[in-house]
Amino acid sequence: MGFFIGCDLGGTNLRAGLVDSDTGEVAYQVSVPTLAREGHTLVMQRMVALFRQVIAESGIEAAQVGGIGIGVPGVLDVEQGLTLFLPNLPGTWRNVALRDTISRALNLPVSLLNDARSITFGEWKFGAGKGAATMACLTLGTGVGGGLVINNQLHLERGGTAAELGHQSIDFNGPRCGCGARGCLEAYASAPALTALGVKAVIQGLTTRIGAMVDYDLNKITPKVISQAAHEGDEIAMEIFNEVGFAIGVAVSNILVTVGPSKVVLAGGMAKAGDLLLEPVRKTVKERVSVTKIEGVEIVQAALGNNAGVIGVAMWTCEHAG
Amino acid sequence: MGFFIGCDLGGTNLRAGLVDSDTGEVAYQVSVPTLAREGHTLVMQRMVALFRQVIAESGIEAAQVGGIGIGVPGVLDVEQGLTLFLPNLPGTWRNVALRDTISRALNLPVSLLNDARSITFGEWKFGAGKGAATMACLTLGTGVGGGLVINNQLHLERGGTAAELGHQSIDFNGPRCGCGARGCLEAYASAPALTALGVKAVIQGLTTRIGAMVDYDLNKITPKVISQAAHEGDEIAMEIFNEVGFAIGVAVSNILVTVGPSKVVLAGGMAKAGDLLLEPVRKTVKERVSVTKIEGVEIVQAALGNNAGVIGVAMWTCEHAG
Repeated sequence: MGFFIGCDLGGTNLRAGLVDSDTGEVAYQVSVPTLAREGHTLVMQRMVALFRQVIAESGIEAAQVGGIGIGVPGVLDVEQGLTLFLPNLPGTWRNVALRDTISRALNLPVSLLNDARSITFGEWKFGAGKGAATMACLTLGTGVGGGLVINNQLHLERGGTAAELGHQSIDFNGPRCGCGARGCLEAYASAPALTALGVKAVIQGLTTRIGAMVDYDLNKITPKVISQAAHEGDEIAMEIFNEVGFAIGVAVSNILVTVGPSKVVLAGGMAKAGDLLLEPVRKTVKERVSVTKIEGVEIVQAALGNNAGVIGVAMWTCEHAG
Repeated sequence: MGFFIGCDLGGTNLRAGLVDSDTGEVAYQVSVPTLAREGHTLVMQRMVALFRQVIAESGIEAAQVGGIGIGVPGVLDVEQGLTLFLPNLPGTWRNVALRDTISRALNLPVSLLNDARSITFGEWKFGAGKGAATMACLTLGTGVGGGLVINNQLHLERGGTAAELGHQSIDFNGPRCGCGARGCLEAYASAPALTALGVKAVIQGLTTRIGAMVDYDLNKITPKVISQAAHEGDEIAMEIFNEVGFAIGVAVSNILVTVGPSKVVLAGGMAKAGDLLLEPVRKTVKERVSVTKIEGVEIVQAALGNNAGVIGVAMWTCEHAG
C-alpha cells in the first residue's frame, strides 16, 4: 500500500512521520516547534515545508507517498475538512480549511482527525486495541480525549465531534470543566487534575515524599513525580492514583453499559503509570457494572506510546482518503 | 414479507400482537395475565398457547406467520437465546432457553430482545426515530431502559446487554440504584423516583395540589397525577418535572458527546408528559454540551405508544431470525 505521512499538530511541537501502511512502522520522522502564536497561516506553511522535508530526507520516492493525515487537538468538521475550535492553539482556527490548503499545496489527499481519534485508530490497527470489533480509548493528558471503534469502524458521528469520552459528566454537581459543563471526567482525570491533588497534599503538609522530591517547589510537581513516589511506596501518592483511577473507573463503567466495547485502552502520558492507574479502574468497574456482561472485557494500557497518533492518522488516510 | 408475532413479556401482562411487517401495523392482539409467580415453565406454556390463539383468532393463515419475537424485561444472552436475570419477574429465569423452547413448540423462528431494545427498534423502524442512522432511546418506566441504533444497526454488544442507558452514573456519590451502583439515571428518572418526589412534597406540606388530588392518600400518587397537577399550573409539580428532566438532560448530554445520535427518543409511560419533561431535557443539553456539535439533534417523544415493543421485536424477528 505504500507510505503515508501522519502529522501530530501539537500545542508545542509539530511532528510528522512517514508510516509504512503494511506494518504501521514509522520509517522516518521529524519534529519542529509549532509556534502557534504566529497564527494559522504560518503554521500551515510550516506544515507544508515539514512534509516536504520528511519526504525528501526519508530516502523514499515521493511517488510512493499516498497521502497525509493530520491529527488535530480540538473540534473539527472532518467531512468538510475544517478546524472549528482548537483550545490549546493560540490564534483563531475557526473554520480554517486545513485539509484543502495542505492538499492543494502538496497535491496529495489529506484527511483530518481529532488527535484522540487518531490515537484510537492507531491503537486499534496496530496496538493494544487490535482485534476488538468494538473498543474505546481514553487519552489522558492535558485534557482527556476519547475515541470509539464500533463494529470495526472508527465512530465519527456529528462530523467527527462525538466520542468525546472525557466530557461525559460523572457528577452533575461536580467541579467546573474547561468545556463549561460540570463534573466531566476531564475535571477529575487530566494531568492537571492529578497534579493538583499532589500540590494539595504538599500544601496540606500530609506525610508524603512528593514535596521533598521537588525541593518543595510546587511548579515541579508532575504526574511523573507522583507516579514515582507511588512506585516507591508513598501512601498519599498511591491514594491520589486510586482517586483518579476511581473517576476513570466510573467513566469506563458508563462506557461499558452504554457502548459495550470488549477492550478499553488507556493512552496518553498518565497511562504510563500502568497498573498503578489501571488497577483502581478495573476494581471500580467490577464493583459498579452488573447490568451489562463484562466477562472478558480487557482494560489495558496503550501499546504504541507517543507514535499512536501519527500512525493512526496516517493509516486513516491510507484507508479513507483520495 | 408477511406477518410476525411480537410479544411483550411483562411483569403483569403477557401481550402478543400480529404485526404486518410491511406497515408495522398491529393486525390483531391479545393480552393475558403473566402469572409469573407460577414459574418459567408455566409462563412459557402460557406463551405458546397465547401465540396459537393469536394466529387462530386473527383470521390470518398460519403459513403467513414468519416468526415470533419476544421482548423481555431484563438481561438476556440474545446470541444463545437465554434469559439471564429478569428482576421484575418472580421465579428463577437464570439460563432459561426461552428462544429454543418456544421455537420447538411452534416450529417457527424465535428471537429474543431486551424490552427497551425492542421499543428502540420499533421507534426506529416506524416511529419517532425513523430516518436517523444513529439514534438513542430511553424508556422511562418502573426502571429506565435504553437502546441504541448506530449506523443503521441496533446495537447489541456484549450479547445484547449493552445500551443500558439508564445505568450510566451521573453522580458517582448519588443515591443507590437497584443495579447496585450509585447515581445511575434510573435512580433519578424512573417512575418511582418521580413519584417519590411527589410523595415528599406532600409529606413536607409544600404548597401543592398533589395532596388534595389524591385525598392525601400517598398510595395514589403517580407520575400521571403529578403531570396533571403540573399541567394545571402547580409550581411544585412543575419543579418536580424540571428536576427529573434535568437528570435526563445530563444523561442525554453524555449520550450526545459519546455516541452522537441525531435523534434521542423518550419512551415509556413518563414520556407521555410531553414538553413538560422534554423542555428541561433540551434546556440542560443546550447548557452542557459544547464539545460535540448538536445543531439539528432532535430530542422527541416516542410515537408508537404501548405498541412500540411488540412492533419492534416482531420487526426484529422479520429481519434477523430464521
